[in-house]
Amino acid sequence: MKAYFADEQRRHDPRSFLSSGAPKPNPEVPARVDRLLAGAIAAGCAVERPGSYGLEPIAAIHTPEYVDFLQRIFERWQRIDGASAEVIPNIHPIARGGSYPASAVGQAGYHMADTSCPISEHTFESACWSAWTATAAAEAVEAGAASAYALCRPPGHHAFADVAGGFCFFNNSGIAAQRLRRSAERVAILDIDLHHGNGTQGVFYRRGDVLTVSIHADPERFYPFFWGYADERGEGAGLGCNFNLPLARKSGDDVFLEALAAAIRRIEAFAPGALVVALGLDAFEGDPFGGLSVSTPGFARIGEAIAAMRLPTVVVQEGGYLCDEMSDNLTSFLTGFGGSHRTRG
Amino acid sequence: MKAYFADEQRRHDPRSFLSSGAPKPNPEVPARVDRLLAGAIAAGCAVERPGSYGLEPIAAIHTPEYVDFLQRIFERWQRIDGASAEVIPNIHPIARGGSYPASAVGQAGYHMADTSCPISEHTFESACWSAWTATAAAEAVEAGAASAYALCRPPGHHAFADVAGGFCFFNNSGIAAQRLRRSAERVAILDIDLHHGNGTQGVFYRRGDVLTVSIHADPERFYPFFWGYADERGEGAGLGCNFNLPLARKSGDDVFLEALAAAIRRIEAFAPGALVVALGLDAFEGDPFGGLSVSTPGFARIGEAIAAMRLPTVVVQEGGYLCDEMSDNLTSFLTGFGGSHRTRG
Repeated sequence: MKAYFADEQRRHDPRSFLSSGAPKPNPEVPARVDRLLAGAIAAGCAVERPGSYGLEPIAAIHTPEYVDFLQRIFERWQRIDGASAEVIPNIHPIARGGSYPASAVGQAGYHMADTSCPISEHTFESACWSAWTATAAAEAVEAGAASAYALCRPPGHHAFADVAGGFCFFNNSGIAAQRLRRSAERVAILDIDLHHGNGTQGVFYRRGDVLTVSIHADPERFYPFFWGYADERGEGAGLGCNFNLPLARKSGDDVFLEALAAAIRRIEAFAPGALVVALGLDAFEGDPFGGLSVSTPGFARIGEAIAAMRLPTVVVQEGGYLCDEMSDNLTSFLTGFGGSHRTRG
Repeated sequence: MKAYFADEQRRHDPRSFLSSGAPKPNPEVPARVDRLLAGAIAAGCAVERPGSYGLEPIAAIHTPEYVDFLQRIFERWQRIDGASAEVIPNIHPIARGGSYPASAVGQAGYHMADTSCPISEHTFESACWSAWTATAAAEAVEAGAASAYALCRPPGHHAFADVAGGFCFFNNSGIAAQRLRRSAERVAILDIDLHHGNGTQGVFYRRGDVLTVSIHADPERFYPFFWGYADERGEGAGLGCNFNLPLARKSGDDVFLEALAAAIRRIEAFAPGALVVALGLDAFEGDPFGGLSVSTPGFARIGEAIAAMRLPTVVVQEGGYLCDEMSDNLTSFLTGFGGSHRTRG
């Protein structure tokens, strides 16, 4: 399978992060890239550098207000007396659609839902290359590849059309899905990250052409808290096109695979022309987030089950944090997937 | 004039506060109370302790979900491994009305709009007494006093029905206004704090029986950023019953008094039976927030102009932060107000 990655994706290097109100080191570190590259190469991937696509694929998902904010906020933040080194929000609107402040502090609160996604000098650059990596993988599949792997970092599935959150800035899975829509009338996104894909859900919530399905730890007591419940089913043209499968904490392979079978039935009923897998590795039993208990061989079984749909597939990297088995988990998924994957075409 | 205050209002003692993303000492300190007491006494106030009114006057403004959250969150927070000493939010919903998490971290983000209102052991107790101080002052005016001063601390005007923010937990001005509604068909709230009274506006935004008027530094580049613009005029039954007068930074007495004249015209057109003044002293030229440039004698002129409406009036303390002239500013306002104030009755 072809894989895509650009070295500029390493440059974003966030430091701060509040967890339960207390400062902790930010776990979305550049070193994740090395583990992911090793895992992809061990699975037989040939890694290519994506081209630059400019802002077009990003603007297809994100608002111009938000893109402009991400592009300029770090420079603006430097001019505030006594401001933090990285851009960190500390006041938030309680609803969208009200007035939009000119202030950098106000806009930071408007466009950032939490403190896990600090913006520094290279954030915009890395986020663009991460989005282009997703775009390149989608174009490879459009051009006839059965599948492709986008080593996206920073990740994307917590980013809404105009809000960053959960280590994410541009919604890479959404960008890939939107690209695939050029050649497929309907596209499905299957998110198997430990955390609910709230940004992806938000982007497509009122659309009937992109099905969003997410399997994740129950948000009642887990990030992202406000989204990911089973009763969130889409709205308007999108009603019935969002499917959430929250799992009890520490659920292992069998429970996960049972939920995956339900997810696959829903995707098959949607009859999409292409699939995006939002691949988190943090459902792993040894991941620092400790939310679910999928095993390393479990990722291979997950990959096999997804491959059995025989859909043209873009695998987009989402979360998964430093632990000894991180590379092996990616290798396991990609090997399980690639060993079984044949498209119908 | 009678004044109300309870010593329990001192016990809330917040430490942390993020400003432009960086930690700073929290300026809403118990020492504010001493300055305010000195200023009220110098103006001839006799200070009384309010009674306890239970949750009834608070529940008239705030949701049971929020009251329960404030009452229990500090104890729940202690049980989280590695959590901050005070309750500080770090993830927020981007809209209301979605799902409500069971998690303490999730609920903190749901019920706290910013990092300026950390909750610790005595916060709920102090906030209740602050609300009861407002209630006692309102009852004194209901009982026939021409006016009364509520030394409310913590302040209240940034608190919405179910959201804390800007050093505020319970909306004392709103609680006083609601109490006055028992005997007055229409009540006006005039907020002259440096910062827009966003919580007060939010509480009454769809109601036609309480007029909310606020004079404040333009939120385009000032807290609370997302509210306080001139085009926010109320909704539904409240359309036309909210009036915002944002002022350019560093505006002084003359500009402030001109805005106040417009505010008074609007209040007189509403013909209320009683008035609540949400009195911030932070529009002062020497206040640490530095947003506007009202002088110490300016506060007397403001008090005089308000008194000339000859309405039964509850003066509720909002912001104003430590500076040498803080006591004098309160004395100036209360003297200007009290020297001219006669109710029509």
